[in-house]
Amino acid sequence: MTAVIALPAFQALVIFSVLLALKMGAVAFVTSKARFDSKVVLNPEDVPVNPGSQAQAEEALATLRAKRAHLNDVENIPVFMILALLFTLTGCSATAGWVYFGVYFVARTLHTIFYLKAVQPWRTAAFALGQLTQLGIMVQLVMHVL
Amino acid sequence: MTAVIALPAFQALVIFSVLLALKMGAVAFVTSKARFDSKVVLNPEDVPVNPGSQAQAEEALATLRAKRAHLNDVENIPVFMILALLFTLTGCSATAGWVYFGVYFVARTLHTIFYLKAVQPWRTAAFALGQLTQLGIMVQLVMHVL
Amino acid sequence: MTAVIALPAFQALVIFSVLLALKMGAVAFVTSKARFDSKVVLNPEDVPVNPGSQAQAEEALATLRAKRAHLNDVENIPVFMILALLFTLTGCSATAGWVYFGVYFVARTLHTIFYLKAVQPWRTAAFALGQLTQLGIMVQLVMHVL
Repeated sequence: MTAVIALPAFQALVIFSVLLALKMGAVAFVTSKARFDSKVVLNPEDVPVNPGSQAQAEEALATLRAKRAHLNDVENIPVFMILALLFTLTGCSATAGWVYFGVYFVARTLHTIFYLKAVQPWRTAAFALGQLTQLGIMVQLVMHVL
Repeated sequence: MTAVIALPAFQALVIFSVLLALKMGAVAFVTSKARFDSKVVLNPEDVPVNPGSQAQAEEALATLRAKRAHLNDVENIPVFMILALLFTLTGCSATAGWVYFGVYFVARTLHTIFYLKAVQPWRTAAFALGQLTQLGIMVQLVMHVL
Repeated sequence: MTAVIALPAFQALVIFSVLLALKMGAVAFVTSKARFDSKVVLNPEDVPVNPGSQAQAEEALATLRAKRAHLNDVENIPVFMILALLFTLTGCSATAGWVYFGVYFVARTLHTIFYLKAVQPWRTAAFALGQLTQLGIMVQLVMHVL
């Protein structure tokens, strides 16, 4: 079964898919930590798991911010990973894989950092860079199959 | 590496995966526009990026509506794209690809339009059509591997 | 095109991808039912679709809980499905597929049940088991391509 794994960009695809998954996991961790530090949880049953916390109708501000950064990831990263896989399956070069997937990973990591640190307009710039990278892959995908 | 890209439904898969990604991007754009028009943002650092806006604890109604439409996309479209890829990998016909992926794309586009325009019960009907299409793919996938 | 579908873990991948998609659909159904039972909806146009309901600014508590369980799925399951597909494409054994994908499916199903029934710390334990399973796949993926 060397067919697929011999694709030039497969190595870059695997490395950056794993890194993107870890980056999303890091935001989930930041959310948990914000909930722990703020001592505010939504689910009453989470009080014993976060000693000293109280169940309230709304999360603390830091938790809400981490959740917004996470939701932005969820809105974008899985779709990118699928398009990156399709791009790899079309036999794109290893260089194309390293550049496209690498730039996207850097853009999304910066987006998360800028979101958590409340840095604008750099957060929007990092978001735009990620979207442009995905647009490049979409153009190449469509040109490949037409 | 012609193996995978020679799959009969690969062309339809790529076209409709890109179209679904663009459709999700369109909803993100509607969200940004609603935020810009309503002049209400959640993040204080977003005020300078949206001139004349104010940071509040809750988004404007039009923004909330666009975000709900977007969340429904996020809950459904990435999973569909993965199942569509698996279906393609089983060697399904080009016709099956065009019909299943095309109907799903139309159903989800209508769902978004009906959500943003507050049209019921058609939004629910469009949602149901998309789910039925996915169910059809799931049945064929399971029959293929059993 | 037997190349990909002849991969040892392809059968397990398809079965558990379909089961995970159905599990997510089940949570969406629980959300709809909670909305129907509580007679509280967010969209004014949903009132006629849920006879006897009222449109309010916030969902009922049971609906919010189901939505949180669903969001946790959306944050985790699509990324896992992609990593599982990459793992399958590396030619992992059928046994590895059945064990990794099966344990993840059981962990996520328990996570949903524990979330809906408000059972802690078992919900966190089920979440951790799912994350550990994904971590195992990520380690194997990286080792395979390095």
